[in-house]
Amino acid sequence: MPAIDHFWAVIPAGGAGTRLWPLSRSSSPKFLHDLTGGGRTLLQATRDRLAPLAEDRFVVVTGKAHRDAVLAQLPEVDGGRVLAEPSPRDSMAAIGLAAALLEREDPQAVMGSFAADHVIEDAEAFATSVRLAVEVAREDWLVTLGIEPAFPSSAFGYVHLGGELAGHPGATTVQEFVEKPSVRRAADYVASGRYRWNAGMFVVRPTVLLDLLARWHPDFAAALRAVAADPARLEEAWPGLPRIAVDHAIAEPAAAAGRVACVPSSFPWEDVGDFDSLATLLGAAGGTTVLGAPGLVRDVDSSGLVVPAAGRVVAVVGLDDVVVVDTPDALLVTTRSRAQDVKQVVAQLKDAGRTDLT
Amino acid sequence: MPAIDHFWAVIPAGGAGTRLWPLSRSSSPKFLHDLTGGGRTLLQATRDRLAPLAEDRFVVVTGKAHRDAVLAQLPEVDGGRVLAEPSPRDSMAAIGLAAALLEREDPQAVMGSFAADHVIEDAEAFATSVRLAVEVAREDWLVTLGIEPAFPSSAFGYVHLGGELAGHPGATTVQEFVEKPSVRRAADYVASGRYRWNAGMFVVRPTVLLDLLARWHPDFAAALRAVAADPARLEEAWPGLPRIAVDHAIAEPAAAAGRVACVPSSFPWEDVGDFDSLATLLGAAGGTTVLGAPGLVRDVDSSGLVVPAAGRVVAVVGLDDVVVVDTPDALLVTTRSRAQDVKQVVAQLKDAGRTDLT
Repeated sequence: MPAIDHFWAVIPAGGAGTRLWPLSRSSSPKFLHDLTGGGRTLLQATRDRLAPLAEDRFVVVTGKAHRDAVLAQLPEVDGGRVLAEPSPRDSMAAIGLAAALLEREDPQAVMGSFAADHVIEDAEAFATSVRLAVEVAREDWLVTLGIEPAFPSSAFGYVHLGGELAGHPGATTVQEFVEKPSVRRAADYVASGRYRWNAGMFVVRPTVLLDLLARWHPDFAAALRAVAADPARLEEAWPGLPRIAVDHAIAEPAAAAGRVACVPSSFPWEDVGDFDSLATLLGAAGGTTVLGAPGLVRDVDSSGLVVPAAGRVVAVVGLDDVVVVDTPDALLVTTRSRAQDVKQVVAQLKDAGRTDLT
Repeated sequence: MPAIDHFWAVIPAGGAGTRLWPLSRSSSPKFLHDLTGGGRTLLQATRDRLAPLAEDRFVVVTGKAHRDAVLAQLPEVDGGRVLAEPSPRDSMAAIGLAAALLEREDPQAVMGSFAADHVIEDAEAFATSVRLAVEVAREDWLVTLGIEPAFPSSAFGYVHLGGELAGHPGATTVQEFVEKPSVRRAADYVASGRYRWNAGMFVVRPTVLLDLLARWHPDFAAALRAVAADPARLEEAWPGLPRIAVDHAIAEPAAAAGRVACVPSSFPWEDVGDFDSLATLLGAAGGTTVLGAPGLVRDVDSSGLVVPAAGRVVAVVGLDDVVVVDTPDALLVTTRSRAQDVKQVVAQLKDAGRTDLT
């Protein structure tokens, strides 16, 4: 299959991933790590997945502190299109900045925004969904890819599907975006077959995106377009931009206004939010799963996830569903069920002034 | 109190302590480590406890590979009396060698043999017991110190007490030594009040010890005396000595022959056999006990023992009775209840040829 004409891949590469500490840190967030053991970092895998569709049309938006690391990991991407946010401003600012630049660069552009730290295993199915989403987006819809729920998760927001979209078999309208539900409500959603996980994947014409933004946040849209017209104004304008997610700024009101479509998708998707989901992703079941060199791990009657990232021997005796993450300057020992609470350690370390470790 | 005339402290410093891996190893056995956090290694603490009784009259018997480390840790001990075993030959050879040398050096000697890797917290009570044991030993008894059982352990042998020893209030005869019993039988022993743990502490005149050995193992006694007469023969004679514990070689038959006395003692004693007993020794209860720098450990809803011996931050989240031992080249994660099984890791590593770590 050829690439998609005028399709631009936008990769917001942000977020520290503190629940993956000590592997992921502010100074080295999770998208810079190979968390699948496949030899490519999450960022690189995101690019690899999109390159057959976008060729060299990439825009990456990342934190100032990580721009060099991103450039080093993505030699194929034009360095001029690796944008550094002067400070964190949530996803609307990052994606909006890319949209404003693309609006000027390519009037026929359709952009697809895909986070740098998600894992998608079936690149073919992903490409098929993106191609359909781009077709729909050319008709001025804001299109989201809706992930088929693997279980009734209370950790994700959901997309409530409407009816079939005329002229685009496989696409639907969207009734609304719903925030993270209770597990009970999530179970109802999953049972209905009419809800999908919202993975924050949007496909849209840049002008459509900015016009939608202008409808509810006119100053915000104007500021982004002004920066695109004169990039030298970025540093000055940036601190004044609202900290808001693209979902709240645009997607939710646009759905209410009947402007959002969805491509329900079935490719396996994982946001690798913590070591429990990483263990699931790596297929941990029964025994001990090793992310790294298996020869470093000595396991007696144990199960769970061991990451021997310091090159030392790690021995685990008699613990089930344990998580051991060994790095050169910090060690984490927890369980899969407590994996969410790793952020408490990061908070403690920050309080203790150990910014070298967080 | 003055020192005890002609009392010689013999310290067998052997045993790898593999259940304390990765802290303790063949190359660095547990007696060389400070396991109490008190600033002195177990070997040094053993010397400190005996010095008020023996002044400078020490004989240390250790493995060839550890002689330099022992000399470095015990600058107060005459280096000529730090004996290196050419190869491991169990306790009878080690203690018998010390006895044979002392028999020639001091005809009035009474020796007391105390392992280098036990923890005794009440040095005063210990000294009182040793003083009484020496008095009894001068009358040609083989005297053992009997430890008051803290619980019905199936991990130790027991001393079955006889009646009061005439002329020595506080001492008794010994009916027999019994091997490690079942927990059930141990409970009967403890309930009877007539059994003590056998901690392998013997006080005896060297000549008495060697004459007892000569009764059941005449060649063994002759070989030791020949080496003492000409220390140059050590290397040649050593490999031919039987591998047998002093308990089996002498103590058991001597008890049957009515030659053994006991000083039942009440000082707290701990052989620190594994990380569970180390945790108990360090007072682990409720929270997380740290052997090392407490500031290195970040604990969220956890309890157990953490040894941050590599200087790195160790975070433990949501695990009870966990044991984490962090050293520069190897890491152990287990639980207090599985602490015995650490030796399986050591066996695995030996099988894998990782002698650098064992």
